[in-house]
Amino acid sequence: MEINEMTAEECSAFLESASLGRLGCSFENQPYVVPVYFACHSGYLYVLSTFGQKVKWMRANPKVCVQTDEIQSHSQWISVIVNGEYEELPEPQYSVERKHASSLLAKRYHWWLNALGERQMRGENSIEPLFFRIRIQSMSGLRATDEEERRG
Amino acid sequence: MEINEMTAEECSAFLESASLGRLGCSFENQPYVVPVYFACHSGYLYVLSTFGQKVKWMRANPKVCVQTDEIQSHSQWISVIVNGEYEELPEPQYSVERKHASSLLAKRYHWWLNALGERQMRGENSIEPLFFRIRIQSMSGLRATDEEERRG
Repeated sequence: MEINEMTAEECSAFLESASLGRLGCSFENQPYVVPVYFACHSGYLYVLSTFGQKVKWMRANPKVCVQTDEIQSHSQWISVIVNGEYEELPEPQYSVERKHASSLLAKRYHWWLNALGERQMRGENSIEPLFFRIRIQSMSGLRATDEEERRG
Repeated sequence: MEINEMTAEECSAFLESASLGRLGCSFENQPYVVPVYFACHSGYLYVLSTFGQKVKWMRANPKVCVQTDEIQSHSQWISVIVNGEYEELPEPQYSVERKHASSLLAKRYHWWLNALGERQMRGENSIEPLFFRIRIQSMSGLRATDEEERRG
């Protein structure tokens, strides 16, 4: 197995193809990690979420980290880590960005909206969709390849 | 899709069967998330790692979060989140715990040690295995099930 650093271009391409990440936020130096679905576009990760602890914490401290990976086997994997800043996209100031986020996310995550709709139908009224984005400040990636893949 | 909170017993059982998690640590309120392999036993997550940013940060701030999940589909998944404290297991004070960690991890992660050995053979001498554990302070879990699974 060989582990190599990825270039910025490789990291960007990987983020644009990825969908599931783990978002880390922090409050009073206690970290908190949750899975999120995102769409990466032009230096931002757009996220569709419900209100909860992570949003409360990111409002208090906008520094976040998003890790995403593709693990084929123990010796063939990619892991990309993004450091960035939380930006909420409320109406009406961010209606253009919300539309952009919505169209990016709707393409890939209509099932998410369906599930949300279903939960709201059952009376879980507290669940309101919320858009935010992470402005990418830095990123790094590692790629592990095994002998056979390299030969192939 | 229905989302339910898991009991402490269900969270423990899930952690004991899991192997891959995402570890979040934090320094000066900047979170950092990396994938880790772990073995859960008696209230601790044991981790085999190499030295790097996460260890530096956890030495400075031992508060950590580990998230682990099993995602079968958009509507069938489990996600468990652990809050805990970093405890390094250096020689000679922790030789009993190191042996315990080593035997727990060796059963499942011999490939990891092989890969490490291979990298060391190639002269990557800076790579020394390092054992640490996370003392579980609290945990919570969510389980999503879809209609068909519930009926089945």
